[in-house]
Amino acid sequence: MERPRSRCPINLAVELVGDSWSLLVLRDVMFADRHGFGELHAGSLEGIATNILTDRLRRLVDAGLLTREPVPGHRQRVRYQLTEAAMDLYPVLLAMASFSLRHLDPDPDLASWAREVHAGGPEREEDVLAQIRRSNGLAHVPSAGQVVP
Amino acid sequence: MERPRSRCPINLAVELVGDSWSLLVLRDVMFADRHGFGELHAGSLEGIATNILTDRLRRLVDAGLLTREPVPGHRQRVRYQLTEAAMDLYPVLLAMASFSLRHLDPDPDLASWAREVHAGGPEREEDVLAQIRRSNGLAHVPSAGQVVP
Repeated sequence: MERPRSRCPINLAVELVGDSWSLLVLRDVMFADRHGFGELHAGSLEGIATNILTDRLRRLVDAGLLTREPVPGHRQRVRYQLTEAAMDLYPVLLAMASFSLRHLDPDPDLASWAREVHAGGPEREEDVLAQIRRSNGLAHVPSAGQVVP
Repeated sequence: MERPRSRCPINLAVELVGDSWSLLVLRDVMFADRHGFGELHAGSLEGIATNILTDRLRRLVDAGLLTREPVPGHRQRVRYQLTEAAMDLYPVLLAMASFSLRHLDPDPDLASWAREVHAGGPEREEDVLAQIRRSNGLAHVPSAGQVVP
């Protein structure tokens, strides 16, 4: 990040992902298990434009939130995966979903994962996180650990 | 909110507060205890412009996240306060601050509240929330309660 407006921790996060699309791209990699440009574009519920998707993927890779690797055997295909740092945005996405559940009348099907995580408690959440980690080639982590260093 | 791009719970929250300034205005009311236009403008670490501040305050009032009341005895003064709904964005702000603490090298003084909340556990967090509620004229809530209905 070049020259943040301030080094307030909330502002730094806002500058990183506080735009209309970055968190939605991360959401689709994290919860919809989409890892290719084509499926991220075609599957976008919000109809993300190709130029915006290209830009946000590049920014997220530059920010260390996604990795971008060629798919073996497919000359032009690339796979995007979450990094460990991106996993630490999971609580942000969950908190946003929880807020929506209380106040914004989301689609029940689209909100069911968030409701399940809340209803299922820590064990259900660990399952969800373990599944996300597997899908993104991240090492198994036995328990959630410290949120802050 | 008119015609959201989708009713995904994360998207609804992104459409509500996923811009460069809305969460920072809420942050300043919540954590910096600023309630007037003048102090929100003058105290802004990020140098928010008056027209943007005016627009975001209006949007946040329209969205039911802030109340706007005249200050008794001051003809032109207005006080902005957090609503109960806005209190439910506290976990989003905290999760963003936690992410920054791990990955974005925030200013230690500006990040100290977040570090204290983590170090102090639920009791410290209840103190912080109780103080915020008092400053915003919200009824005392003895314990955090359910996150999801």
